[in-house]
Amino acid sequence: MLQKTIKNINKLNQEAMQKARQRLDILTKPKGSLGVLEDLAVKLAGITGNPMPKIRKKAVIVMAADHGVVAEGVSAFPQEVTPQMVLNFLKGGAAINVLSRQAGADVVCVDIGVASDVNAPGLIVKKVKYGTDNITKGPAMSRKEAEQALETGIWTVEEQTKKGVDLLGTGEMGIGNTTPSSAILAVYSKLPLEKIVGRGTGINAERLNKKIKAIEKALERNRPDENDPINVLAKVGGLEIAGLAGCILGAAANRIPIVIDGFISSAAALIAAKIEPKAVNYMIASHISQEPGHRVMLELIGLKPMLHMNMRLGEGTGAALAFYIVEASTKIISEMATFEDAGVSGELSN
Amino acid sequence: MLQKTIKNINKLNQEAMQKARQRLDILTKPKGSLGVLEDLAVKLAGITGNPMPKIRKKAVIVMAADHGVVAEGVSAFPQEVTPQMVLNFLKGGAAINVLSRQAGADVVCVDIGVASDVNAPGLIVKKVKYGTDNITKGPAMSRKEAEQALETGIWTVEEQTKKGVDLLGTGEMGIGNTTPSSAILAVYSKLPLEKIVGRGTGINAERLNKKIKAIEKALERNRPDENDPINVLAKVGGLEIAGLAGCILGAAANRIPIVIDGFISSAAALIAAKIEPKAVNYMIASHISQEPGHRVMLELIGLKPMLHMNMRLGEGTGAALAFYIVEASTKIISEMATFEDAGVSGELSN
Repeated sequence: MLQKTIKNINKLNQEAMQKARQRLDILTKPKGSLGVLEDLAVKLAGITGNPMPKIRKKAVIVMAADHGVVAEGVSAFPQEVTPQMVLNFLKGGAAINVLSRQAGADVVCVDIGVASDVNAPGLIVKKVKYGTDNITKGPAMSRKEAEQALETGIWTVEEQTKKGVDLLGTGEMGIGNTTPSSAILAVYSKLPLEKIVGRGTGINAERLNKKIKAIEKALERNRPDENDPINVLAKVGGLEIAGLAGCILGAAANRIPIVIDGFISSAAALIAAKIEPKAVNYMIASHISQEPGHRVMLELIGLKPMLHMNMRLGEGTGAALAFYIVEASTKIISEMATFEDAGVSGELSN
Repeated sequence: MLQKTIKNINKLNQEAMQKARQRLDILTKPKGSLGVLEDLAVKLAGITGNPMPKIRKKAVIVMAADHGVVAEGVSAFPQEVTPQMVLNFLKGGAAINVLSRQAGADVVCVDIGVASDVNAPGLIVKKVKYGTDNITKGPAMSRKEAEQALETGIWTVEEQTKKGVDLLGTGEMGIGNTTPSSAILAVYSKLPLEKIVGRGTGINAERLNKKIKAIEKALERNRPDENDPINVLAKVGGLEIAGLAGCILGAAANRIPIVIDGFISSAAALIAAKIEPKAVNYMIASHISQEPGHRVMLELIGLKPMLHMNMRLGEGTGAALAFYIVEASTKIISEMATFEDAGVSGELSN
């Protein structure tokens, strides 16, 4: 399933993109003056093959899992918060619920590796294992488990496409998950940990120090192989990170645009990009988070964030906000008047 | 009217802001993790006095006017585009109409100084004069005309508040209007023109050179007095810029949040801030435009933009997009569950 999905990731439709750009250029505005809104319309045309792309149904996929590395004291919140927040998602009280309601998007919550059993109506239970193992002492998971998590992501996206979803967002919940995300970034950026490891939910200097030490130990102990992204996932990753990487590959294979949330989602996007570089064409960056490594991560992938709002919550909150902007781009290309229709004079010979 | 309005601009309601911050801190997320969304909710509480602020009715005010300085060849579009675009706004075909429809906001179009007569249902005609005079040869307008334009803005806002509008955005149309905006910025930033004058709608190097020369000449000829912002408006400003500065002062006096669009709107905001510094508390920055001086202008005012989208269209397009984010902040504070309600554990003793 994984190999088949990767093979199905193709280039963008150049003809649809050219047609979209041509239409944008005859609308009543200076050429290119709507910047990223125009780029998004062209990208959506390339993804969908429709020069006048439309969004009909949106969903944020929230993958939840736990991390053995929390035993090292890397987070300000106890591990029990992961299942508690999953219940909050299902009851509609979390930030991602509020922002998804505003966006008219579904929240699809998947237990891909919470450390305890969570039973709640609406939860998709696809547990690969009860949390990762402590990466300071060995690999987070086996290669087979990493592949299973990737395929869980692909499966989740395929279920959503069957329901007619044509815009996806990535989200996650997992106490401690900025630690494996930073470890993944360290593998690919080769920057000193002090520059790329941040305060996550807001830890103090003492915990930050523990976090850096834990990542250092994890990298030494596991020696992840940067030329093999699934090895990196298995050695120092997380189940929700692997699941989201699978979602991204699945979205790309199904030609569905997928909006990437913050630091953890971007770690998943980086892995997906390393597995298949063409997947990047299907990604849309949403926001730049407070986490210092996020900028580096987005640069490594080749994405530019639209929203600069100092957010650092995760859950898919930045992606849900950005849905509105993605939709705006489709309205611009389909609803604006042309120079000819509106009787507006064009540019002087410059 | 102007003096009375300025006197009515008061401080934010500290008690409502404190209550809003207290509520945000008990919602199911790490403290402060929603960044600017939280700051916006607190700001709206301070503006409205309601710790759980709501948005009920939105409008973008688009002020249209012409500029005598276009005779110097500073724009890539002919002056006739100003009235043509006004008609486009009234027919609903422009970018601002598309984005305002998406936002559920009205577009309020005011002819405050178009160089020709425009007749169209829905247009508010409050023409101060038929375009400004050429600033390379003398002042843009008289001080009395500048004051009249400021009061037109105040009047426009008061009409909107009577209709129940509780979120405003600034927008403009006026071929050539990045030239007076850059001149205003030059007065207050004292930076070399090469650093702050940009390509507006997308002019070539030759026109950019003419634009810089025209601003240089206008500043030499008129010697605007930076200690007297109405003098600056009259000497090198524009009628729509003065009108929008009036809108901002009127919004502040009426305790209505006002979202500032791009470069030209920010020039108006800078003038409003110089007339009454407390007005800044009522402003919300939307986007950072491609225009190189915009960043400097926002820094001078003390505002941070949320959207980084390389837009440079004006009309209020950035403000209309940002309405969604402002509304998101009100939904977050009123709809999210608390730690207690959701049974979610709080932070460990850090």
